[in-house]
Amino acid sequence: MTKPSLPQGTRDFGAAIVYKRNYILNTIRSVFELYGFEPLETPAMENLETLMGKYGEEGDKLIFKILNNGLSDPKNIAKAQDGFEKLLEGKNTAALTERALKYDLTIPFARYVAMNAGSLTFPFKRYQMQQVWRADRPQKGRYREFTQCDADVVGSQSLINEVDLCHIYHHVFNKLGLVNYTLKVNSRKVLAALATIAGGADKMIDITTAIDKLDKIGIEKVKIELQERGLNAAEIQTIETYLNIGGSNEAKLAAISKLFADNEIGQQGIAELNYVMQHCKDVHINIDLTLARGLNYYTGIILEAKAPETVKMGSIGGGGRYDDLTGLFGVPNIPGVGVSFGIDRIYDVLDELQLFPATIGNTTKALFFNLGDAEANAALGLMQQLRNQHIACELYPEKVKLDKQFKYADKKQIPFAIIIGSHELENQTCMVKNLQKGEQVAVPFTALTKYFETNI
Amino acid sequence: MTKPSLPQGTRDFGAAIVYKRNYILNTIRSVFELYGFEPLETPAMENLETLMGKYGEEGDKLIFKILNNGLSDPKNIAKAQDGFEKLLEGKNTAALTERALKYDLTIPFARYVAMNAGSLTFPFKRYQMQQVWRADRPQKGRYREFTQCDADVVGSQSLINEVDLCHIYHHVFNKLGLVNYTLKVNSRKVLAALATIAGGADKMIDITTAIDKLDKIGIEKVKIELQERGLNAAEIQTIETYLNIGGSNEAKLAAISKLFADNEIGQQGIAELNYVMQHCKDVHINIDLTLARGLNYYTGIILEAKAPETVKMGSIGGGGRYDDLTGLFGVPNIPGVGVSFGIDRIYDVLDELQLFPATIGNTTKALFFNLGDAEANAALGLMQQLRNQHIACELYPEKVKLDKQFKYADKKQIPFAIIIGSHELENQTCMVKNLQKGEQVAVPFTALTKYFETNI
Repeated sequence: MTKPSLPQGTRDFGAAIVYKRNYILNTIRSVFELYGFEPLETPAMENLETLMGKYGEEGDKLIFKILNNGLSDPKNIAKAQDGFEKLLEGKNTAALTERALKYDLTIPFARYVAMNAGSLTFPFKRYQMQQVWRADRPQKGRYREFTQCDADVVGSQSLINEVDLCHIYHHVFNKLGLVNYTLKVNSRKVLAALATIAGGADKMIDITTAIDKLDKIGIEKVKIELQERGLNAAEIQTIETYLNIGGSNEAKLAAISKLFADNEIGQQGIAELNYVMQHCKDVHINIDLTLARGLNYYTGIILEAKAPETVKMGSIGGGGRYDDLTGLFGVPNIPGVGVSFGIDRIYDVLDELQLFPATIGNTTKALFFNLGDAEANAALGLMQQLRNQHIACELYPEKVKLDKQFKYADKKQIPFAIIIGSHELENQTCMVKNLQKGEQVAVPFTALTKYFETNI
Repeated sequence: MTKPSLPQGTRDFGAAIVYKRNYILNTIRSVFELYGFEPLETPAMENLETLMGKYGEEGDKLIFKILNNGLSDPKNIAKAQDGFEKLLEGKNTAALTERALKYDLTIPFARYVAMNAGSLTFPFKRYQMQQVWRADRPQKGRYREFTQCDADVVGSQSLINEVDLCHIYHHVFNKLGLVNYTLKVNSRKVLAALATIAGGADKMIDITTAIDKLDKIGIEKVKIELQERGLNAAEIQTIETYLNIGGSNEAKLAAISKLFADNEIGQQGIAELNYVMQHCKDVHINIDLTLARGLNYYTGIILEAKAPETVKMGSIGGGGRYDDLTGLFGVPNIPGVGVSFGIDRIYDVLDELQLFPATIGNTTKALFFNLGDAEANAALGLMQQLRNQHIACELYPEKVKLDKQFKYADKKQIPFAIIIGSHELENQTCMVKNLQKGEQVAVPFTALTKYFETNI
């Protein structure tokens, strides 16, 4: 027998971690609901054809495919053989694998909306917090199984949705104590305008792909990449001028308004940025003209949330507007806008800044020590009284040395020990010991619930 | 493009269902924590070798296996070919599939305990609420992806754990309104005693397997099965006598105490049943001597929860004591006892008995109607005030006919509409309409938060 282990890139979450993760997830959930978003859960498995071809060639390779069952059944073997050969050719085939694990939440959401478009109420505002799986090479902070957390409004063109989503970031980060977050905002329409004056609209993907790397590789390398992608010196100069625009949000908008004076789509983008800014006075918006967001399906406002600068961490959230959620599934004309939160990164940021509340997971309030059968019987009765008043408690199940029982309370961070020995049993009184302060007090059995209701 | 669909046996959960499911899961979670249990989450994927051979030959076939990635890479093809041939022979091989989806929560829990035995605090009390996957033929009430919900104490022999788990059933079912549940209790030690006086200890599995079907096939067919399994007429007669024991819990225990007068293991089982009964006066325990629980790893007290008799439904929970959780993973001597709740069935029972609280999912309290830009601006400001006081609200994002906005509120079951037209804007007052009662009242902007704090 080999020693048991976990698949690479996956994790067990013990109690301390689950409590902290749930603190983040519950905070986000409560804010989503405060803004009228409703939950959706889709299965871990999707039909393979629902997923294939949606994430680009590289993405397709990272989808975890599930082997069909019953392949070794004689009546399935020929089919399986054929499926296997197709697989080796790099094709995929239902004969071997019909299902796969979901790769993100967006495509299953699109599949859901397409399947239920007739019965849903639009605008449809949903949030989804579920696991996704990717066969990426595992590395620090990158897992093969991780939680995504998305909110989208579909079926509405209104910028009020963008305004709401910006407020959601503000609300969540403030609740989590990340008061110095930054929300970078830009518009794909502004980037489209840039493309038209620097190489032509058909260069938009080339330009945004290069700009997207600015943070990582610096301006000189971006210029080289633009050259390799076929832009001439004048065009590259225009882009550099654009990228160098600085100053306040207002100054940036004024500068690009001049730069794109004759460009209708550019002016539209600027008006939208302006609307969002005007309606999000509290939100820490930083108009970032270099923000491009890699995904080419974004068409309007794009967003990226950054942790406070004292922490070295990439983006902790992002999103944007898109024109067409469900076209790939045969249902046209459903535009939308969405945001996501990076749970693992937010966890690391809160940990580093020590922003998790100290009381998280401190659920059990009292451990009854076990000093023998008769004493344990008394404890069992008292425990039911406490539990009926929502006070979590436990009885150490075996009569062992007090040492061991103290150690158990300590390891589980239980704040009170309740000791009932023969003397206490006789007097119908227990010793309640505050394990942090080391103080103890005698409390009659009949007053125990009251004691905890007032002391914790 | 084919119409999008869901894999057989899987489900999307829309908002109404998510809220109801979470109501059940949160209720159970809160009770688990009241009794000192802590959460654990393990990955969806396990190494295939962790799972294979743990669920019997039939179970092995129902495990969803995940295809390795990169099989069509030239350097992997030979290995993949070999793996595929082994697969067709009904063997499994890491060359084709190294990972699989978890089939239950128990084996991953055992794997976790074995991997972390050195650092865990024993007795270790954990609960786990996660999805599992089985390639079963889908049918009404049986899914390929479903949620299991388990609590176990490991590293303790004390019956106090059984007493706690019985109280957990009681507590949960009462909280859910299932006050007339029944908890069937028996002991595998009593069944072992039966085997020794009716065919010998080595017949224990034969006898329990047959008895387990009593509910479904009736006594005559059980007798035929026992005969086929090699028991003689006298032995079958003894078993029938045993199965016919009736009366109160006390009467049943008295009868088997006489039947197993000279049998040490039987007397032990009876003493344990007696202990649990004595310490669970509130719990609706029904000592059911015919209860066997299919799984052969149970060794002591066994439990099965039944819905109120007015509902036709199989068991809604079950569990029992086992001797050895982690032996299969090389860590001996960890006994335990656990229970599980059948979430899908509990859902159906609550639905049928109309026990879901009417307020479930009623999160958004108010819809601001959109009557134009200036009016919407006022709404945006008021909404932030309400949301800061934890009152969920939304603004209809587009200025469309009021009809459509009323319909949206109706579909989302939003109880209040807030209407701000040009007149209201001028007076800094809004009309608040109670959509259930059809009444409306004018509320100054400055008093709106207060209004909702006192009226909902």
